[in-house]
Amino acid sequence: MDINTLHQILSTVANGSTSINDAVEKLKHLSCEDVGYAHIDHQRSMRKGFPEVIFGEGKTAEHISGIMNKMKVQEKIILVTRLDQDKADIILPEFPEAEYHQDARMLIWKKEEIIKLGKGTIAVLSAGTSDIPVAKEAFLTAESMGNNVKSIFDVGVAGIHRLFKHKHILDQASVIIVVAGMEGALPSVVAGMVSIPVIAVPTSIGYGASFGGLTALFAMLNSCSSNVAVVNIDNGFGAGYMAATINRS
Amino acid sequence: MDINTLHQILSTVANGSTSINDAVEKLKHLSCEDVGYAHIDHQRSMRKGFPEVIFGEGKTAEHISGIMNKMKVQEKIILVTRLDQDKADIILPEFPEAEYHQDARMLIWKKEEIIKLGKGTIAVLSAGTSDIPVAKEAFLTAESMGNNVKSIFDVGVAGIHRLFKHKHILDQASVIIVVAGMEGALPSVVAGMVSIPVIAVPTSIGYGASFGGLTALFAMLNSCSSNVAVVNIDNGFGAGYMAATINRS
Amino acid sequence: MDINTLHQILSTVANGSTSINDAVEKLKHLSCEDVGYAHIDHQRSMRKGFPEVIFGEGKTAEHISGIMNKMKVQEKIILVTRLDQDKADIILPEFPEAEYHQDARMLIWKKEEIIKLGKGTIAVLSAGTSDIPVAKEAFLTAESMGNNVKSIFDVGVAGIHRLFKHKHILDQASVIIVVAGMEGALPSVVAGMVSIPVIAVPTSIGYGASFGGLTALFAMLNSCSSNVAVVNIDNGFGAGYMAATINRS
Amino acid sequence: MDINTLHQILSTVANGSTSINDAVEKLKHLSCEDVGYAHIDHQRSMRKGFPEVIFGEGKTAEHISGIMNKMKVQEKIILVTRLDQDKADIILPEFPEAEYHQDARMLIWKKEEIIKLGKGTIAVLSAGTSDIPVAKEAFLTAESMGNNVKSIFDVGVAGIHRLFKHKHILDQASVIIVVAGMEGALPSVVAGMVSIPVIAVPTSIGYGASFGGLTALFAMLNSCSSNVAVVNIDNGFGAGYMAATINRS
Amino acid sequence: MDINTLHQILSTVANGSTSINDAVEKLKHLSCEDVGYAHIDHQRSMRKGFPEVIFGEGKTAEHISGIMNKMKVQEKIILVTRLDQDKADIILPEFPEAEYHQDARMLIWKKEEIIKLGKGTIAVLSAGTSDIPVAKEAFLTAESMGNNVKSIFDVGVAGIHRLFKHKHILDQASVIIVVAGMEGALPSVVAGMVSIPVIAVPTSIGYGASFGGLTALFAMLNSCSSNVAVVNIDNGFGAGYMAATINRS
Amino acid sequence: MDINTLHQILSTVANGSTSINDAVEKLKHLSCEDVGYAHIDHQRSMRKGFPEVIFGEGKTAEHISGIMNKMKVQEKIILVTRLDQDKADIILPEFPEAEYHQDARMLIWKKEEIIKLGKGTIAVLSAGTSDIPVAKEAFLTAESMGNNVKSIFDVGVAGIHRLFKHKHILDQASVIIVVAGMEGALPSVVAGMVSIPVIAVPTSIGYGASFGGLTALFAMLNSCSSNVAVVNIDNGFGAGYMAATINRS
Amino acid sequence: MDINTLHQILSTVANGSTSINDAVEKLKHLSCEDVGYAHIDHQRSMRKGFPEVIFGEGKTAEHISGIMNKMKVQEKIILVTRLDQDKADIILPEFPEAEYHQDARMLIWKKEEIIKLGKGTIAVLSAGTSDIPVAKEAFLTAESMGNNVKSIFDVGVAGIHRLFKHKHILDQASVIIVVAGMEGALPSVVAGMVSIPVIAVPTSIGYGASFGGLTALFAMLNSCSSNVAVVNIDNGFGAGYMAATINRS
Amino acid sequence: MDINTLHQILSTVANGSTSINDAVEKLKHLSCEDVGYAHIDHQRSMRKGFPEVIFGEGKTAEHISGIMNKMKVQEKIILVTRLDQDKADIILPEFPEAEYHQDARMLIWKKEEIIKLGKGTIAVLSAGTSDIPVAKEAFLTAESMGNNVKSIFDVGVAGIHRLFKHKHILDQASVIIVVAGMEGALPSVVAGMVSIPVIAVPTSIGYGASFGGLTALFAMLNSCSSNVAVVNIDNGFGAGYMAATINRS
Repeated sequence: MDINTLHQILSTVANGSTSINDAVEKLKHLSCEDVGYAHIDHQRSMRKGFPEVIFGEGKTAEHISGIMNKMKVQEKIILVTRLDQDKADIILPEFPEAEYHQDARMLIWKKEEIIKLGKGTIAVLSAGTSDIPVAKEAFLTAESMGNNVKSIFDVGVAGIHRLFKHKHILDQASVIIVVAGMEGALPSVVAGMVSIPVIAVPTSIGYGASFGGLTALFAMLNSCSSNVAVVNIDNGFGAGYMAATINRS
Repeated sequence: MDINTLHQILSTVANGSTSINDAVEKLKHLSCEDVGYAHIDHQRSMRKGFPEVIFGEGKTAEHISGIMNKMKVQEKIILVTRLDQDKADIILPEFPEAEYHQDARMLIWKKEEIIKLGKGTIAVLSAGTSDIPVAKEAFLTAESMGNNVKSIFDVGVAGIHRLFKHKHILDQASVIIVVAGMEGALPSVVAGMVSIPVIAVPTSIGYGASFGGLTALFAMLNSCSSNVAVVNIDNGFGAGYMAATINRS
Repeated sequence: MDINTLHQILSTVANGSTSINDAVEKLKHLSCEDVGYAHIDHQRSMRKGFPEVIFGEGKTAEHISGIMNKMKVQEKIILVTRLDQDKADIILPEFPEAEYHQDARMLIWKKEEIIKLGKGTIAVLSAGTSDIPVAKEAFLTAESMGNNVKSIFDVGVAGIHRLFKHKHILDQASVIIVVAGMEGALPSVVAGMVSIPVIAVPTSIGYGASFGGLTALFAMLNSCSSNVAVVNIDNGFGAGYMAATINRS
Repeated sequence: MDINTLHQILSTVANGSTSINDAVEKLKHLSCEDVGYAHIDHQRSMRKGFPEVIFGEGKTAEHISGIMNKMKVQEKIILVTRLDQDKADIILPEFPEAEYHQDARMLIWKKEEIIKLGKGTIAVLSAGTSDIPVAKEAFLTAESMGNNVKSIFDVGVAGIHRLFKHKHILDQASVIIVVAGMEGALPSVVAGMVSIPVIAVPTSIGYGASFGGLTALFAMLNSCSSNVAVVNIDNGFGAGYMAATINRS
Repeated sequence: MDINTLHQILSTVANGSTSINDAVEKLKHLSCEDVGYAHIDHQRSMRKGFPEVIFGEGKTAEHISGIMNKMKVQEKIILVTRLDQDKADIILPEFPEAEYHQDARMLIWKKEEIIKLGKGTIAVLSAGTSDIPVAKEAFLTAESMGNNVKSIFDVGVAGIHRLFKHKHILDQASVIIVVAGMEGALPSVVAGMVSIPVIAVPTSIGYGASFGGLTALFAMLNSCSSNVAVVNIDNGFGAGYMAATINRS
Repeated sequence: MDINTLHQILSTVANGSTSINDAVEKLKHLSCEDVGYAHIDHQRSMRKGFPEVIFGEGKTAEHISGIMNKMKVQEKIILVTRLDQDKADIILPEFPEAEYHQDARMLIWKKEEIIKLGKGTIAVLSAGTSDIPVAKEAFLTAESMGNNVKSIFDVGVAGIHRLFKHKHILDQASVIIVVAGMEGALPSVVAGMVSIPVIAVPTSIGYGASFGGLTALFAMLNSCSSNVAVVNIDNGFGAGYMAATINRS
Repeated sequence: MDINTLHQILSTVANGSTSINDAVEKLKHLSCEDVGYAHIDHQRSMRKGFPEVIFGEGKTAEHISGIMNKMKVQEKIILVTRLDQDKADIILPEFPEAEYHQDARMLIWKKEEIIKLGKGTIAVLSAGTSDIPVAKEAFLTAESMGNNVKSIFDVGVAGIHRLFKHKHILDQASVIIVVAGMEGALPSVVAGMVSIPVIAVPTSIGYGASFGGLTALFAMLNSCSSNVAVVNIDNGFGAGYMAATINRS
Repeated sequence: MDINTLHQILSTVANGSTSINDAVEKLKHLSCEDVGYAHIDHQRSMRKGFPEVIFGEGKTAEHISGIMNKMKVQEKIILVTRLDQDKADIILPEFPEAEYHQDARMLIWKKEEIIKLGKGTIAVLSAGTSDIPVAKEAFLTAESMGNNVKSIFDVGVAGIHRLFKHKHILDQASVIIVVAGMEGALPSVVAGMVSIPVIAVPTSIGYGASFGGLTALFAMLNSCSSNVAVVNIDNGFGAGYMAATINRS
């Protein structure tokens, strides 16, 4: 439940158009709601500006449905991340307004159109073609949180001229998300070209000494450019979320 | 050299108050200047909004002096990080306007007062007393880049009520830097309480399974709060820099 | 065989109600019994207050059945941990009194009701929904060993107010088990609030730099709260067992 | 400040023997006291049954003195751990009642005799001679927290008969602390012999593949005996503290 | 081809009972034979006292058959290790004298009875039931190389009395192989009881911080008993082979 | 597009035999071509002497086909590496001139015969039979880039005489690629025998402490022979490519 | 005390030449002797054929002297390993018969000449010049335990012909110790040439990806030759001890 | 001794100008010379085109002098790497023709001017100022082996325009050595711009998650450019050596 909704309910109580009993019913789980297998944090929208996001991995389709049904009552948007097609196929019929994005493994349910909150544009770059699913997760998260987002895919450092061709997009952005696997060099190069914050996302793309993304992660943490901060391996969602909080500030 | 200075020089050329020869002299190292042991990146102020910062570790006092002397001609502020007292003692007499901060191991030289560029306040928190040097480095960096900065030290999760006492500072900040060693839990707790971006800085404080800060680093990358991004271990400078770019956007 | 049973057998020998031959038969495997693929440690109940527990992973259903049949003769309770549904389906028909708990992957066979031995209450907390299976294993183990156990699930530090709501349970417990994956921060926060022993259980929940639970493990070992000790990743059984020995002391 | 002291102050206020102003003075830092470089957690005695302990590493002698002077006003006992002889030599003259234990690198200041709170005896074992400093830290911590403590040193598994000679001490203990480096096998063997909780402390003793104690740590976490929980490498203090909370319960 | 066979062939050439052409045919691959996908090292029997052993993992059943057919001509025994049931099912019909041991994943083909070459007895111990497959591989290898071998399974340190029951076997052995997973403590305890060489084999049995056998490996390398040397994780074959070379010397 | 082709097109424009519009059509993607999921780097042939190579892992058969169709227009050869049989079966019908090499998991499409560019011979060695797939990938890559290549398989250090038999091949080579798993010792021995560059390729063959090739990788990086440089684990392609650039120089 | 000495004492008691009181005095510490900081294992000579060896690292010169004085009464030989020159300088005056070997950091005290117990010769090889100190420790240990020992130093694989020159020593040995740092390849090559047991000792010689000897350790554990077992990094003592037990068998 | 020298000696023997005894004296150590602490590999010049290089670390100044004196008789050039100033000060007076390079920690002794053997130019790049010592070691090694070498220092990816300024040097080189610490991104970018072989050298420059150069090493092994091979951390010598063998081919 976001702060506007709370204001609205209380106003209707004040002017008598909502009975106290009805208001209690709406507000009683304001702090959090215990459904046995989860404590749904309904207060999060108010506290953090965006509702709790459901991490789909390791939850059954039934549990996800259950949580979504509770959240639907209070929230205007629900994101489910890391959701496999199998589970999505079970959940979608119950939530016909929801959209499932297979490459990003993400389900988005919206009560209404998202209002643009972000002040600038967020640019999402990927170093390779195989990094696109993680980049898409970042893209969709940032977009769902009310931002203009642009993407440039497959512009890794092995052919750095491909990036330079798109320099105008970097120049117009207010935050940049850079997604890269293997040696994870792209965020350093990009950050060296701009003065805005860069969120680096290592991916598990690679083999051998890439260690499932660790090499890219460590390379990004050691970036010789200083306007870089890093999120967990394959954490496109976190990058999109962080970029949105920056763009909102 | 920042963009304002460049504008100014070119204007004086345009109105004839500066001769072409003098302007050439001033601008000839605009891209970068090769001093044998370094390529000083004078273009950086224009490109990134802040001049190159000198990483003091592994450079001799003579090299640092040499680079500072070249930069002085073009820049309004010079930061030297990770500078030991020994080297500072050699450098300071040559740059009497410079200030050395022993706990943060940082030297700051300013041509003039720093103009406030940041829109909000940056809060710097440390989990323990031993994390203070890293927190101070973040503090001084952010301040040098034109920001209002506030600090709260020694508010780790073993006595979480100490943090709650200062909640109003968190509520008024636009970016928060959280510095913690050992289990690195503080950023998650702080980020769970606010809607703004949190920059987490792991420190090498701890022993045994703290692995010189790796445990804190990994804990922060796994934060269950999503508005967190991470910089390298003990990288107070990077955190301050990143926070400044966010606060400027 | 527990000490009471031994006393009882020897008394009946003393008063002549059991023949020496019968007693020999009952006691001959008192130390341990070699069944080829295992040395069943029948002495363990006497030595440690609880019979050997069968670790199901890497044993065939036939071997598990075989060991259970030997133990049934001597013990009042048998636990099988890390038992997959497939093997459980083979074993259950042969032991109709046994109960299988799918989420905890645990099978419990009891000859009679368990006597309460623990002096206080053991509280089992989980940080997330996905940590519940490990928490359940701890719960069932502690309960099987004769303790009152209470559980609070999904109260991680991203919304720490959810934990505070249940503070009375923490205050009334004599030992607390805290189960958490990802950054593993919950045990530090909980232990900072209480004066009793906290057993921390890292789980393999997470991805990327969570390293299958290592990050949580190391974070817990570095806890800035001192009333914390740690067991192996996903070792709900060990945590329950340890908590029971503490509650019994 | 412990709960008894608080009761006492409030009683004297109630019966008029203490003025309100005096009581305010005594109680105003009840929650925590900010001395710039530290937030001293005076509430900890009440919340956790033992005052905050000063971790000496990475703090100057001056800071340690400063914190001790603040704590002296409120507490009956102060422990400083990981304190080098050099710093102890600076601190001791100011606190003549304090005792410094060089092998354990620990300083103990007491206002009065420690009251025995523990119900049973805590046994502290070391596998080798080189593990003794860590074992001593555990010993002194547990003793300072009001426990009877017994020690057996140098009884590692290369000559396991040395341990068996002392079996009666194990049988009479209520908690056992086992300190071992190298392969860290001793806790498993000890825990296999008893039914009480065993706290295992890995030490950094060893070389090559001992990895500064990591091998011992991991071995202990994998103990095939279930009544074992583990603390950080060389964390004798934590083991003593945890054992004390168990013995108090 | 072993040295006796070579002597024999040359004798028959000398006494005219074998033609030179026939001898050439038999001896021409004496050094090694190139079959495209392998250089079969026929000289190995002479050089090392035992023919090359076929590592089954990562080879097709066809390649294994092909190598076996070449070796059959020259050798009296062929071992194939790490051979899955599937491949064994393809190979066995072609080599009806071969025996497949499913638990040890080993195929043994013998031209004639193995002659006892070892001077003493080799004892093979396993810490747990799940370590038996690796122990069996060691057992079969040592036996195939002409040794008397005895085994004791499931005598881990959690109930060390089970081991003491079999002390006479240890006392009569000339080499001991100890197979253990988890904390890998058994070799230290065994080696502390005897004066003969102990070959320690870590297994990948365990979970969490057992790291697929690394913890056991490192523990064994750090053994506080000095008559211990270690082979690779799960390398029962290598342990059996090493023990055989020791027992032969 | 290689430099010769570009010259040719421009000549035909110069002499009027190609219209400007046609030339534009041919040259418009000279820098790179954006197909949504990839930025195909057509300039690479000119810049690097060989077209972009398609890394098959993590791309759909459709995407690979799509990229191949775009490249076909501009390039004389296309390599697809790490391509599974399944995807090859989908792609091959569309490109009947392409050849699929199952062991090397490589697809090669050629417009015309490859011209020999390499000055000497490249020798490819493998230590074991299981290392052959990686060695084949190196072989095919070097051959596709216009080199004479010779191979010697299964000549590891356990029977070093097998290698000496082939010394003449080493003596006549201009570059040597050595592929080895397990302890990765072969490159050191080979490099110690020759004066030419040796490219070492670690493979993931092995188990236990081979860590999926890391041990071989680190051993090769520590080679006591100095004419050795190393590529990533299982990177036969990279080794072939590097050897080709050396042989071309 | 070794078994012969025990026999002798008891005989003199039997024939009355030693009083019972005197015998008690001599035998009372037969099991082990507690000197506060150590449990000296006097039974070890009988159990293991060689007295306890004093690990000098982390013990004070005073403690070492103390233990030596107790052992002198019962043993014919005392070894102190990892003893720095500084401590040796304190200890030597008190034990004038002792010899200190600086390169091996070893002190040897002998009551009488060592009797040759080993049946064959032990060969000690080092790969490089820097590995000699560890090789010397192995040499002296094996020699002290009653063996003929030969050494060949600096015969690493970068010039493998240096090793072949000494093949006759390998052929005449009954056990070989191979000491190597960096890539640790020498044991594989040596073991491939002989049929006897090879004890491999990794050393911490190297830099970068040698990880203080870990790379050599892992390479040796992955040896493609099967007659290799491994001891801890830099553990020359353990290798000499193990070789002696093999040579005695 | 190089092949020309050998030819020359044999010719003088053939024409009688050298007596057989004198020739024997000169040639008797042709294979290798055993000086107790080292087997000097005099054959190396012939076999590998360059004499053995002395690794100074872990050798005494006396040993280094001794080896140099033996080599002087046979070789035209001697390199000593990783030699500290202290040892150099002892060695230099004895070899007045030798030159010591402090930054590269390298001593070079030459009998005569070095003949240029390399066909092209070798370019040595460093990413930062702190990487210069390693780059210098590469520079001096390649130069000593008879190559033209050019260097460009401090052109890391944080200001990539600094590199582009020097593109003509890259275009004219036949091999490029790229030295970089921290995130190790420079080799990928450079290799993406050229078609010649690139030797990447990670350095230990950095802190925190740079792990003493491991991050740079792994990043380089994962380079998305294929004309890159890698040497050990800080191994400037190896890079120079490898580049020289490539440039000679």
